[in-house]
Amino acid sequence: LPNLIHLNLVQQKVKPKASVALCVCHPQIMDDSAPRPRRSMFPWLVGASQLLGLASVVLTGVWMGHYRGGFAWDGSAQEFNLHPLCMVLGLVFLQGDAILVYRVFRNEAKRNVKLLHGIIHLLALIISIIGVVAVFDFHRAAKIPDMYSLHSWCGLATLILFCLQWVMGLLFFLFPGASLWLRASYLPVHVFCGLVLLVMAIGSSLLGITEELLFSIMPTYSKFAPEGVLANILGISLLFFGVLLGYLITREEYRRPPNPEEESLSVHFKTLTEGGSPTTP
Amino acid sequence: LPNLIHLNLVQQKVKPKASVALCVCHPQIMDDSAPRPRRSMFPWLVGASQLLGLASVVLTGVWMGHYRGGFAWDGSAQEFNLHPLCMVLGLVFLQGDAILVYRVFRNEAKRNVKLLHGIIHLLALIISIIGVVAVFDFHRAAKIPDMYSLHSWCGLATLILFCLQWVMGLLFFLFPGASLWLRASYLPVHVFCGLVLLVMAIGSSLLGITEELLFSIMPTYSKFAPEGVLANILGISLLFFGVLLGYLITREEYRRPPNPEEESLSVHFKTLTEGGSPTTP
Repeated sequence: LPNLIHLNLVQQKVKPKASVALCVCHPQIMDDSAPRPRRSMFPWLVGASQLLGLASVVLTGVWMGHYRGGFAWDGSAQEFNLHPLCMVLGLVFLQGDAILVYRVFRNEAKRNVKLLHGIIHLLALIISIIGVVAVFDFHRAAKIPDMYSLHSWCGLATLILFCLQWVMGLLFFLFPGASLWLRASYLPVHVFCGLVLLVMAIGSSLLGITEELLFSIMPTYSKFAPEGVLANILGISLLFFGVLLGYLITREEYRRPPNPEEESLSVHFKTLTEGGSPTTP
Repeated sequence: LPNLIHLNLVQQKVKPKASVALCVCHPQIMDDSAPRPRRSMFPWLVGASQLLGLASVVLTGVWMGHYRGGFAWDGSAQEFNLHPLCMVLGLVFLQGDAILVYRVFRNEAKRNVKLLHGIIHLLALIISIIGVVAVFDFHRAAKIPDMYSLHSWCGLATLILFCLQWVMGLLFFLFPGASLWLRASYLPVHVFCGLVLLVMAIGSSLLGITEELLFSIMPTYSKFAPEGVLANILGISLLFFGVLLGYLITREEYRRPPNPEEESLSVHFKTLTEGGSPTTP
């Protein structure tokens, strides 16, 4: 209900031309009598995603801590154990939640949400880099070659593209230099690439789980050893986390409602110059 | 240009109310002066996706045919070799192309495109089932346990959900029984699940590649054996195929333009009853 009132206020406040542009962008506000979805699944889906994300981090911790001998930073296999934990925490859970803030806080001031999005991504980036350093350090100490496996190719590509995406996001959306047209043009690319990176991070994690299981418990994996079943469940919970996030991010009704003061100018500019339908993040 | 003319004709022909509903659905036709994107990347992207898809099938064939001893149907490892080939051909390449027909033939009669979509999916389903039978048959003959690995969990889940999605699609969209409201409600779910299934199929393939490499060439994989590099390249080409398909499927400008005769009724009905923005597949 507060949302509906907000939208009605928006309609009354804006000038006719802006109103058309807004309707183009968010059709549902065209019809005053249009009800909001009665009982939103949104809070339940967000809650489930957080449970799955946390379960994934905990399962990784239990797998590495209990079955693989715990953690250290000394070039041993215990240093390697930090790799899965950091990647699942940083590149999957935090990356997912950094995207989700745009849906959870879709009625808060955009600048604050942007900052939060950037900060969580920065945290994700730092933790992921620690995780990658851990595995390279372990390989160096144990004289294991680097970068030969499909997991390493996919994983490192994901991390490099993630860095690039973060820097591009900073330049386009947080620094004041970029024109509104440039921002509006880059936004759909940024959103698509973000979702691709999340999927790649989850895919790389599943490849890593398979690699680690075949390296460490190949003889007992096929006998349904508890460690193997636990790691499989970790993989499935990462998969469900990705599917839920994908749903929450792409579903039209969970998108940020338009704010004429923040966006009408850029919306106009894009509509006039390109004739395309502008998108809110 | 022909597209623009078609859209203008549509605008002149439909009644005012339908026109509003259509504009809600496809904002770009609201503004008569809105130009179509000047030089579309669409044909190039479709071409690249087909090259990547075919390259993936060929690479799988070369890997299994040249490095793994070829194909047979006798319970031997050569029967197993049919598994990767069938899955990449059926569950990845054909599934992807079945989705893509809605974009490539977006100006053709919808009923024909639907039929083509269903037929290619049926072909994908048959080939995938042959591929799964091959691996179970090989396991039975070689007394290898089934369904213990993350690859098998993800892969079989993908195939079962794919069957379900196909049957649901048939019931909702090809049989005349389903109401227009039911179709319109199920459509976004069908589209989202279709993309998730394609991603899951590609993810499962990458898991399968990793498993097969570690089972068969673990000692030389880390020495960059040609077979390992070839299989990694196969994985990367499957990944690029998925990213390209994802882009082509989700990009707003490549969607099917609205057709008032086919859709105005259902669009109306949904707009009136739900207040949501209707979507074309």
